[in-house]
Amino acid sequence: MEYTIAAISTAVGEAGIGIVRMSGKDALYIGKQIFKSTRENFQFENKKLHYGHIVDDGKVLDEVLIAFMKAPNTYTREDMVEIYSHGGIIPVKKILELCLKKGASLAEKGEFTKRAFLNGRLDLTQAEAVIDIIKAKSEKSYEVSLRQLEGSITQQVLEIQDILMRMMAFIEANIDFPEDEVEEISHKTLLEDSKKAEERIKKLIDSFDRGKILRDGLNTVILGKPNVGKSSLLNAILKENRAIVTDIPGTTRDIIEEYINIDGIPLKLIDTAGIRETEDYVEKIGVLKTKETINKADLVISLFDVSSDITDEDKKIMELVRDKKIIIMLNKSDLEKKLDENYFIENFPNARIINSSITTGVGIEELIETIKDMFYKEDIKIESEVVLTNIRHKDMLLKAYKSILELEEEIALNEPIDCLEVDIKDAWESLGQITGQSITEDILDKIFSEFCIGK
Amino acid sequence: MEYTIAAISTAVGEAGIGIVRMSGKDALYIGKQIFKSTRENFQFENKKLHYGHIVDDGKVLDEVLIAFMKAPNTYTREDMVEIYSHGGIIPVKKILELCLKKGASLAEKGEFTKRAFLNGRLDLTQAEAVIDIIKAKSEKSYEVSLRQLEGSITQQVLEIQDILMRMMAFIEANIDFPEDEVEEISHKTLLEDSKKAEERIKKLIDSFDRGKILRDGLNTVILGKPNVGKSSLLNAILKENRAIVTDIPGTTRDIIEEYINIDGIPLKLIDTAGIRETEDYVEKIGVLKTKETINKADLVISLFDVSSDITDEDKKIMELVRDKKIIIMLNKSDLEKKLDENYFIENFPNARIINSSITTGVGIEELIETIKDMFYKEDIKIESEVVLTNIRHKDMLLKAYKSILELEEEIALNEPIDCLEVDIKDAWESLGQITGQSITEDILDKIFSEFCIGK
Repeated sequence: MEYTIAAISTAVGEAGIGIVRMSGKDALYIGKQIFKSTRENFQFENKKLHYGHIVDDGKVLDEVLIAFMKAPNTYTREDMVEIYSHGGIIPVKKILELCLKKGASLAEKGEFTKRAFLNGRLDLTQAEAVIDIIKAKSEKSYEVSLRQLEGSITQQVLEIQDILMRMMAFIEANIDFPEDEVEEISHKTLLEDSKKAEERIKKLIDSFDRGKILRDGLNTVILGKPNVGKSSLLNAILKENRAIVTDIPGTTRDIIEEYINIDGIPLKLIDTAGIRETEDYVEKIGVLKTKETINKADLVISLFDVSSDITDEDKKIMELVRDKKIIIMLNKSDLEKKLDENYFIENFPNARIINSSITTGVGIEELIETIKDMFYKEDIKIESEVVLTNIRHKDMLLKAYKSILELEEEIALNEPIDCLEVDIKDAWESLGQITGQSITEDILDKIFSEFCIGK
Repeated sequence: MEYTIAAISTAVGEAGIGIVRMSGKDALYIGKQIFKSTRENFQFENKKLHYGHIVDDGKVLDEVLIAFMKAPNTYTREDMVEIYSHGGIIPVKKILELCLKKGASLAEKGEFTKRAFLNGRLDLTQAEAVIDIIKAKSEKSYEVSLRQLEGSITQQVLEIQDILMRMMAFIEANIDFPEDEVEEISHKTLLEDSKKAEERIKKLIDSFDRGKILRDGLNTVILGKPNVGKSSLLNAILKENRAIVTDIPGTTRDIIEEYINIDGIPLKLIDTAGIRETEDYVEKIGVLKTKETINKADLVISLFDVSSDITDEDKKIMELVRDKKIIIMLNKSDLEKKLDENYFIENFPNARIINSSITTGVGIEELIETIKDMFYKEDIKIESEVVLTNIRHKDMLLKAYKSILELEEEIALNEPIDCLEVDIKDAWESLGQITGQSITEDILDKIFSEFCIGK
């Protein structure tokens, strides 16, 4: 790369340490200009932490540790400088500004990792794993991403590509012998390999639904009219299943209050505005917006107050969720019932129905068990299995899958084997886009735009 | 210290890098157990960044850089290990948990810095400066804290203590010569020194009001009935004076939306709940809570809608803020006025009154100029001046000041000089509590409890 980039690489907030880092050919040059050691005749040593001050025109900006890392044994494969300053907002901001003033460019999202990819340190699935690791909201999603970083997806893709490569070599070798008998054997051999590739691609594609839940959590909407118990339900679930960060010292529940862990898999409550007790969701946000939210949901938990009659609002809600995976909680069931359970059974033949009294805790455990039963039935053995979590990978696999099916159709039609090569090549290239062997700048930009700055 | 502590030292959130660190005699031992280098015959070198993996029972937890720093040239003056992992919530959490499993104790708030203090690396004002740096919300408050970290407060205190020490030495030297004439000269000499000490202490105490605003911002409440324009006002001020972090890439306005910079000094909007347009503050939170909030405020900005009549709610608000520093904004003054400005002039003789039309931008600049005029009249020249920002320091200085005044009273009463020593000593010790020369465990605990974990 021609230019040197700089960014804040730690999360912004009150904390012990903050990091500003630079990558590129001028990283050391800039580092030398802004760092003043307490030692005489100071020299940067490769990968050594040095104590001193960041200084701008003689004015001390902060007391820091600094490290220079020489290319190519660095994250980006370029020269890098990392500055470890006091945490908090101001020190990192001032140091970053100084780096920029001295000639560095502000890094774009994911630009450090993009350089790592372009310089061959990571393939594309590994680069994508980095951002998944950072964004992981549960231990399971973290483990999946970590194994992807180690190359688990790449490994699978390369093995499938090997099969395709063998098929292409076979065609090349046989293309000059267009005898019928050879062709028949050839077709048989190719079909066998094609089936192998098909099966392996299919298996990866099939793993995506579970992978998506692992990675993004189970998008869940809690619906119900005001005062039916939405926020009580949220609190009750939180109590049963502590939000994953509440046990990290120094964090508050606020950060990812929306994420609740059920057996290591996050339940993601979308649009908490909708579950605040004081808001009338359907009325306030409007039916259209509500529909959108519900459409995004993997699961709807719909609360009804059985101690009062069905209202127009209840009916509106019922209309909206009819086609979703749904759990109906008949709340306040400890009070005198005015609503008939059969009414819901008739209206929602596919729904799971739970009688609850949220304030007294009745029904919470059943709710959690029901969710587990609906979504996590097959115990996810991610330790031993490659799970697809990235929709881009799935799309590419679907493309490859389509090419393979077309190939098999052509084989069935006894097409000449030299006509089969195109489909195999297409499949091979679709797979290559997963690992980044064949990829366009546009797609790269899109992938790295999902990163945070400083990675 | 007997035991080794560990903590996450970076802010929790999606970011490129996270840091877990340990301090204590077992830091290296634990580091060796959990880190696996990619190199053969790996050995930790002092202050060197090593690449490898954090491993728990053969299972890789993350890909990291790790550094061992040998006592005593470390932050805590103890052996330290720092692990630089992927950012995000899970990696640091898992690594911290592993450190704890291997024998480290979870660090208490500020325990790293407390050890730095107890081991003599920092004095107490410097330790306190560390947390102020981390919590700094504006560049000016940061600069003040940085200079405190470099010893600016300590320097002042030591100089005053020198004067007191000289006085005590003088008394000791003269105590055996109780002749009247000597005593008169002695009294004169002591009074001269005492006045010097008094003046310097007074100057520091007087700097506190500005220092407090520098450090904590100007606590400001925006009050007004619903729809009078509170959130429009907030947005308008934000537009004129960008919140300090909005220009840091990767941060959102949410984090410190409440802080608005006016010439480098933060305007802190307390309890934003009160400025949300949809809430009726006085009614909802209750008059008592509102009173509390207003009591804490350095400044109240009170909005009235001059296009409608005074309501009971307006009157309630007026009642609450009568005794505060107040700016009254007569909003919607572009519409036909129903409210008479004189009404407010009569009711709030000390208030600044601004005619505004917030939605069209009229009055915003006047508001900002008015705030500057009310609070920042003397341009704060913190570059050249020591400013007190810590109330604990002020309290100790006030105690010392009281002892000095008592001393001067006794001198005026011609008390024998051997009776004067007690007050000087008291003053000396009060000052010693600022730097930590004389301090109790209770006070230490209180000070460090304000730190974040991991520092």
